[in-house]
Amino acid sequence: MSGPLIPEFFSADSSSFRPSAIRAFAHLINDPRIISFAGGLPSPATFPAGMIAEVAADVLRERKEVALQYGPTAGLPRLRGAISSIASARGIRCTAESVLISTGSQQALHLVATVLLDPGDVVLVELPAYVGGLSAFYGRSAQLVGVRQDEDGIDPADLRSKAAQVRREGKRLKALYTIPNFQNPSGRLLSAARRAEVLAIAWEERFLIIEDDPYGELRFDESAVTRPIAADDPELEHVIYLGSFSKVLAPGLRCGFVVAAAPILQRVQLAKEAADLCSGMLDQCIVDEICERDLLRDQIARVRSFYEERAAALLTALETSFAGRAKWTDVRGGLFTFLTLDDESIDTRALVPRAVEAGVIFVPGSAFFVDGSGANAMRLTFAKEPDDRMREGIARLARLIS
Amino acid sequence: MSGPLIPEFFSADSSSFRPSAIRAFAHLINDPRIISFAGGLPSPATFPAGMIAEVAADVLRERKEVALQYGPTAGLPRLRGAISSIASARGIRCTAESVLISTGSQQALHLVATVLLDPGDVVLVELPAYVGGLSAFYGRSAQLVGVRQDEDGIDPADLRSKAAQVRREGKRLKALYTIPNFQNPSGRLLSAARRAEVLAIAWEERFLIIEDDPYGELRFDESAVTRPIAADDPELEHVIYLGSFSKVLAPGLRCGFVVAAAPILQRVQLAKEAADLCSGMLDQCIVDEICERDLLRDQIARVRSFYEERAAALLTALETSFAGRAKWTDVRGGLFTFLTLDDESIDTRALVPRAVEAGVIFVPGSAFFVDGSGANAMRLTFAKEPDDRMREGIARLARLIS
Repeated sequence: MSGPLIPEFFSADSSSFRPSAIRAFAHLINDPRIISFAGGLPSPATFPAGMIAEVAADVLRERKEVALQYGPTAGLPRLRGAISSIASARGIRCTAESVLISTGSQQALHLVATVLLDPGDVVLVELPAYVGGLSAFYGRSAQLVGVRQDEDGIDPADLRSKAAQVRREGKRLKALYTIPNFQNPSGRLLSAARRAEVLAIAWEERFLIIEDDPYGELRFDESAVTRPIAADDPELEHVIYLGSFSKVLAPGLRCGFVVAAAPILQRVQLAKEAADLCSGMLDQCIVDEICERDLLRDQIARVRSFYEERAAALLTALETSFAGRAKWTDVRGGLFTFLTLDDESIDTRALVPRAVEAGVIFVPGSAFFVDGSGANAMRLTFAKEPDDRMREGIARLARLIS
Repeated sequence: MSGPLIPEFFSADSSSFRPSAIRAFAHLINDPRIISFAGGLPSPATFPAGMIAEVAADVLRERKEVALQYGPTAGLPRLRGAISSIASARGIRCTAESVLISTGSQQALHLVATVLLDPGDVVLVELPAYVGGLSAFYGRSAQLVGVRQDEDGIDPADLRSKAAQVRREGKRLKALYTIPNFQNPSGRLLSAARRAEVLAIAWEERFLIIEDDPYGELRFDESAVTRPIAADDPELEHVIYLGSFSKVLAPGLRCGFVVAAAPILQRVQLAKEAADLCSGMLDQCIVDEICERDLLRDQIARVRSFYEERAAALLTALETSFAGRAKWTDVRGGLFTFLTLDDESIDTRALVPRAVEAGVIFVPGSAFFVDGSGANAMRLTFAKEPDDRMREGIARLARLIS
């Protein structure tokens, strides 16, 4: 009669979860002896701790009955309004009622996946793609199909062909997941022309676009066009737009958001009620006060110039050590560049032990490709190390590969 | 070719979500003209706002790189240790590695539901049951089967019979969901003898117990036995234990936890990685410092005596106005009592409009019964109103019913 209940008691979805290949590196990322290009975290140097402390003190004095109590599932009403203003400034037609505040934008991904996906449903993802998105979709037992990118982002011809192929196979194509601005991990910016094409294909082929935009504000180059795809879908019939304060303020506050059409947002709200009732109210009150006091604009300017300098240092180091042996994204924003070795026979995953021995670490490209490609690539962040260590780390990497 | 994608794009699970019958009352709960017994919120008078403000200031000065950054999915290591000490003090054999910190205990419920439940799987729930638990299980398209309670909590004979019935019907029985201590909504305490019987039945009938314990510390009566069921399952083979700081500190901080055997906790952690990467780090640092400085003990004592007084006032008012016409739980802890009218022909849901007109509100019992019973009952919280308003509100209710 007896015997262990587990594993026979686990759900099918729970067997679809895949641990993040990046979190597996966590212990190395924080080892000060190792020069790390592997992290995905924003730099703590950008966190406005003093501003947050001051605002937190005010909130806990003046709004403590809101900041410490349960709140509405969709989020603090005034902050929903502030977010709708932010999204409107980016060109998206919306109101406070179009916004739901999530526990970081990872929760937004999870909630959207929950309301859209049945087991076996297909989500098209970029090659390479953000692993947090992949884990949200795998967690619904979805099937992920990769779409090629080039330097301008998603390849429309491949998108069209993959959509048609899914349809021919009789599978249900639900969505394309994309980070158009300074994508994690590729650092690429989807060009304006491509955005229009991607949206047109979504209409033709009948799928939704899950547009994730955590990095849009981290734009170093004024001429970079970061206008969301959602801005050209005024009724939000085909686009669900996600954003976050994690990169412009601090990820520890766990404040992300979804902007979507009413029928979608209603279901997302029910899913959130079941998922955590409401997001952290102290966190929301802090972010709300920062928006209300118009402190965000200067903060974003500081964060931009911080990462712009770091990116320039990494790109210079790459030019010095890798010119003629690899290609990499000439990043115009965000936290990452992506390097692809000319020698296609090299598997960067196999390099990791020797790299760690040499005191340097990166994330192997294959972690980001659902089709098993990308072995000769690596993701490099410029958020973690000072200039001299970046130069030294890239030089070590170059020696390792030659 | 065109036409709206939604609703045909929604997942099956997303059609199983049910909005909380209680959240529907939110606008009435906060109307100062209405005496409210309907809320489920802890009283802001119990929130230690000064203590939290002081600790928050220290954390944002001294540990800002932790408090504002992403953190480990399972939670801040030292706080996991503090929680394992709390659980150990309640008799549960565990270590920091047995603990995962969640975004409130609602997320703990959601994650456990995610890793255990496939569509159609059966969860046994109490009659009446906590609606947040129901929504987590409905969100997995589970089938919920009610188990009767009496004044000592779950009726073991009915539990055994329902488990056998589910088995006969060829369905997969995964778990019993229970709040043994001062249950929401009934206020009941599962007796020590019943706890042992429930655990024995779980072994015999092969199901897990999801033991939710948000109210155990809110014990007015020293002689009330609140020892968790998990304490008598030393290997945690049949019990998943959930707890929260929402009622002893503040729910706005969204800090709950799961204590479970390693194979379960590993999957819960993968599910959480997909769900929100990590819980709020400022919140976790604040709770951690409060534990570290041993401020929790006195805070709990204050909260207990606050609710003890409020409960006494409500029970006295009920005695005055409802003696001989209804039965209610002689509460020994928590936030609620539950009143059942002797007249079984009364549907309290139908009374709501007249009650609101008379300036008083409660939650109709039927909201909590998955089998459609409980129409002549109502949940009453003593957390919201001062003594005189409670007396007046109960008197109004009594007039309405006579």
